Amino acid sequence: MGDDCALLRLSAGHEALLTTDFTLENIHFRREWHPAKAVGHRCLARGLSDIAAMGGEPLAAFLSLALPAETPQRWVDEFLRGFLGLARKFGIRLAGGDTAECAGGVAADVVVMGQAPAGTAIRRRGARPGDSIYVTGWLGGAAAALYQLRERGRVEPASAARAYFYPQPRVAVGAWLRRRGLASAMIDLSDGLSTDLAHIGEESGVGAVVSESSIPRASSSPAGTSTLHFALHGGEDYELLFTARRGQPVPRSVAGVRVTRIGEILREKKVWLMDSHGQRKALLPRGWEHFSIG
Amino acid sequence: MGDDCALLRLSAGHEALLTTDFTLENIHFRREWHPAKAVGHRCLARGLSDIAAMGGEPLAAFLSLALPAETPQRWVDEFLRGFLGLARKFGIRLAGGDTAECAGGVAADVVVMGQAPAGTAIRRRGARPGDSIYVTGWLGGAAAALYQLRERGRVEPASAARAYFYPQPRVAVGAWLRRRGLASAMIDLSDGLSTDLAHIGEESGVGAVVSESSIPRASSSPAGTSTLHFALHGGEDYELLFTARRGQPVPRSVAGVRVTRIGEILREKKVWLMDSHGQRKALLPRGWEHFSIG
Repeated sequence: MGDDCALLRLSAGHEALLTTDFTLENIHFRREWHPAKAVGHRCLARGLSDIAAMGGEPLAAFLSLALPAETPQRWVDEFLRGFLGLARKFGIRLAGGDTAECAGGVAADVVVMGQAPAGTAIRRRGARPGDSIYVTGWLGGAAAALYQLRERGRVEPASAARAYFYPQPRVAVGAWLRRRGLASAMIDLSDGLSTDLAHIGEESGVGAVVSESSIPRASSSPAGTSTLHFALHGGEDYELLFTARRGQPVPRSVAGVRVTRIGEILREKKVWLMDSHGQRKALLPRGWEHFSIG
Repeated sequence: MGDDCALLRLSAGHEALLTTDFTLENIHFRREWHPAKAVGHRCLARGLSDIAAMGGEPLAAFLSLALPAETPQRWVDEFLRGFLGLARKFGIRLAGGDTAECAGGVAADVVVMGQAPAGTAIRRRGARPGDSIYVTGWLGGAAAALYQLRERGRVEPASAARAYFYPQPRVAVGAWLRRRGLASAMIDLSDGLSTDLAHIGEESGVGAVVSESSIPRASSSPAGTSTLHFALHGGEDYELLFTARRGQPVPRSVAGVRVTRIGEILREKKVWLMDSHGQRKALLPRGWEHFSIG
């Protein structure tokens, strides 16, 4: 700060990675549902997860924050505590930003800059027919938590609340995959498996088949709801979805995070879900619009 | 686009420059005063001007745009025409961004990334006692235009309207000064001369004296207003303010833009305005808060 721009030096032979994410009140969070600290944490986690999805090393964050005039100072302090706590955890600095007044609710635009050795960042477009499809962690937990917030205004058990309010971007996993040259394509699961897998398919010009029984489902799903539905279409898990060449050995755990093979890339540009009887049905992208807060 | 992050390669031996600027309806512009095309142009011009102020070469822009649901498509199209037209003029690409809905009015967060050879970017902190102080162009035109908008809802003459609605960031001037190693400190005049000169003073640990008669004032000031007051305290001119070592020859025009010597850096940490009789009075920072739209 103190100058008109932030000055950032990359390591020699590296490229810059840049991602921007808007986080808006009543669209991405509600003040009555989300603690301010969680809002601050989550809006930086979104950007860090984008860096992770390309195998990058995060360097710096920029926070532009517009607040209604009546926002309590305590809310802002807690927001910053969540934001800066996560920044510290990943060793990045808050290199700049802006503040302003906005009558329509809290609006935070977060920029994260990272780097990767030139030519090594993992793209969405590298998947080829025959590649295996993997995900990290367990899926659907965030959607189950959002369902609970909407129905009851709170999340249980405490472990599920912690996972939802304070997601941990998979930066170490992404960087490990990049260093080993293991992933042919990668994306983060921010919009939901069905939507994000469709993005990989579009960018790579391929299709996929996912085996229903192999999808690692988050355990805590409220009574009367489908863990499969949450895992397929729920967003905001911030896990990684990647592909690797057939026969390439991929460990069951990377940087302490479980890695699960869930399917295979197809030449035919359609995405299928296969049940335990071997029956296929089309898996259509039904991501975040299905699970939005608004 | 198409990936989780934008990938940007810097030239070998260069550092990245990054700036973010929020532009908010009813704070930075009003829809009844500012044509949509001008809003798009101006929100990118702010970022380009920050790159110019460090002598940088702009590379890419990112636009995060939040819009009320009822925003007419024509407004958005014109906004983008202004934004992309200026981007094209400076040879930079729109490398990413985000869109969202925002009930409280249009909110645009613009990131501009640029580069400069490592160690050569011009900072605010390099001014030394005895340095000469220069500005580009003419000052106060934007404040005079804003005054007219407030009083009469339009700007005259057409040349003043054009200069206010479509400011031209001084990228070529900044880069020229950086290549020649001429400027010891630099800032862009976004908040107003009195405020921006105070920033140079604070960062460099110095003061300054400005000669009233030497300040290049924009000619078109409405009847009953003071061109001097507008030139001293009006923001949004997007000219450059820089210092150069005493005796260093500085041309009267750089890249087709007039350059005027207006004063000198002092050891004493105060900023003075000297009138034509040699009388000094304190020049206090009375920048943008004085000329804001809200």
